[in-house]
Amino acid sequence: MPTKVKCLASLEDGKRDLRPDDVEIKILYCGICHTDIHHVRGNWGADGYGYPVVPGHEIIGKVFRVGTEVSKFMVGDSVGVGCMVDSCQTCPTCNNDREQYCDFTTFTYGSLDRRDGSRNYGGYSEMIIVTEKFVLSIPENLDLAAAAPLLCAGITTYSPLRRWGVHPGSKVGVVGLGGLGHMALKLAKAMGADVTLFSRSQGKAEDANRLGADQFLISSDPEAMKAAAGQFDLIIDTVPYKHDVNPYVMALVPEGSLVLVGYVGPLEPPVNVAPVVLRSQNLAGSLIGGIKETQEMLDFCGHHKIMSDIKVIDAQELNSAYESLLKGDVMQRFVIDITTL
Amino acid sequence: MPTKVKCLASLEDGKRDLRPDDVEIKILYCGICHTDIHHVRGNWGADGYGYPVVPGHEIIGKVFRVGTEVSKFMVGDSVGVGCMVDSCQTCPTCNNDREQYCDFTTFTYGSLDRRDGSRNYGGYSEMIIVTEKFVLSIPENLDLAAAAPLLCAGITTYSPLRRWGVHPGSKVGVVGLGGLGHMALKLAKAMGADVTLFSRSQGKAEDANRLGADQFLISSDPEAMKAAAGQFDLIIDTVPYKHDVNPYVMALVPEGSLVLVGYVGPLEPPVNVAPVVLRSQNLAGSLIGGIKETQEMLDFCGHHKIMSDIKVIDAQELNSAYESLLKGDVMQRFVIDITTL
Ligand SMILES: [Zn+2]
Ligand SMILES: [Zn+2]
Ligand SMILES: [Zn+2]
Ligand SMILES: [Zn+2]
Repeated sequence: MPTKVKCLASLEDGKRDLRPDDVEIKILYCGICHTDIHHVRGNWGADGYGYPVVPGHEIIGKVFRVGTEVSKFMVGDSVGVGCMVDSCQTCPTCNNDREQYCDFTTFTYGSLDRRDGSRNYGGYSEMIIVTEKFVLSIPENLDLAAAAPLLCAGITTYSPLRRWGVHPGSKVGVVGLGGLGHMALKLAKAMGADVTLFSRSQGKAEDANRLGADQFLISSDPEAMKAAAGQFDLIIDTVPYKHDVNPYVMALVPEGSLVLVGYVGPLEPPVNVAPVVLRSQNLAGSLIGGIKETQEMLDFCGHHKIMSDIKVIDAQELNSAYESLLKGDVMQRFVIDITTL
Repeated sequence: MPTKVKCLASLEDGKRDLRPDDVEIKILYCGICHTDIHHVRGNWGADGYGYPVVPGHEIIGKVFRVGTEVSKFMVGDSVGVGCMVDSCQTCPTCNNDREQYCDFTTFTYGSLDRRDGSRNYGGYSEMIIVTEKFVLSIPENLDLAAAAPLLCAGITTYSPLRRWGVHPGSKVGVVGLGGLGHMALKLAKAMGADVTLFSRSQGKAEDANRLGADQFLISSDPEAMKAAAGQFDLIIDTVPYKHDVNPYVMALVPEGSLVLVGYVGPLEPPVNVAPVVLRSQNLAGSLIGGIKETQEMLDFCGHHKIMSDIKVIDAQELNSAYESLLKGDVMQRFVIDITTL
């Protein structure tokens, strides 16, 4: 169990003086992401950041103060902050709106500020100061609590759906109906795809159906998986633990793609590349998205009224929420009501 | 050792009466592909075709006779036949010029003709009859013997280079300098890429250099591989046996792709997907190309005067050529001079 996670109530902790391009945000809500747990428990191969960790990178709040050069935001605006708060902003990947791959990306928590070297803290906190370029606008028609998970779970699933050109008529599979999976399902449906939800548990069938899935398949049923062979243009695999991806490879059309967004580790059992080669398929991964694409995703969600299915919790419920997440695949995203700090 | 491979000298064996859309070809040259050996030895999971196998799908010859409805070819034309001789020609993949994924593709040898059910035979033979649509035009300026390997090795490497949009300035890696690898190198250079050749053996450095490689790296040298990290937009891996692909994944840029074209089997040691996910990369496979793309490749090769580096052998040297191919990575493609049958 995580024991070192901490919420920061004090405005003083870990806050810097406002720079000209800074936006200070009063945080209202912060979603709980699997990665938060990984980081707190130190098992994403994390190195170099010490405790206490204040996690949280699905941040929603209102602009509280702006630096002298800030032009995009005004006090009172509804804004969000995702997984990144800065990057070098000069390298080719940054210039190509792919700040997530910059060699100097400053992640939202547990990183060091690239200008003053101070340690940064995430969204389980009352206030945060972020460079204007990494602050996102939240469409007015979205519920602020339910928009929080868009900042990580939303962009993580939106980006591969766009990269692989999902369009009306695309056949998309989504593996797992947790925080990532239910966003993938909603977004793919909004893009016009025919969506099949793969889950280990029949218990998810009703949720999948309610969220608009066109088909539901039990992934542990070999007959059902065999019947699904050769059908999917794109499968988004959100499973966060080690699992056999071979049945999903078999479910792809020629030139189809299986994209992993939840699991980082060795692919075991080994992937048989025979179908991958003989049908020119892709086994890919995807990491969040750049800032420009994140804003595009938020605007898309505003246009289509897409939000996350959430359960709002008090700050003191944090550790029991972690326990629930570790136990099984909870579909609803936990969102901390920061005003309860 | 293969013992059941056979060349057919008789015009009678395995030949059908000319159909209206058939082209009869007098074969002059036939390249020897690794797949021929796999098929003869029955170790590509092949099933359902009996012996004798007459392999050969890098076929070059002259049109000898044409059916009454043939319009694209005249007697005497230089033509080629690759890995396929027919497909259903009505399904979505066929209509999309991807005949290689059709559920009813008729491969060039060891398959059954979809119209009369007769077993077919490949290019280690004096004559072949092929449906017009699957006959390719060979540009006049190419040496006929050296063009033969384009029909399989050429399209196998051309297709992924095109699919991943290689252009001037692209950084392309090629793993292995055998029949596939040296074609990948030549084609990528002609597309304007900066090309690095990865090989286990320093002995290939001179050949790589002569063929235009910009860099040469010993793949078994951990220091060299570490220095190559994060550099390649696309790596074409032509190695035909089990090998560790993790160092090549590490060598990709974010959103870069590693494409396997030579190996079909389990990926062992297992691929660590952490870099794949954290840098949004692809691990892909690729299988030859459709007929339209194969003609495009041949025209590209005509335009750029690209041919294979070959060693022409007599029919009786076939088994010793197989032995050489099985022993190690021979760069030159063996091409049988069929007139010696
Ligand atoms: Zn997250
Ligand atoms: Zn950068
Ligand atoms: Zn071949
Ligand atoms: Zn077809």
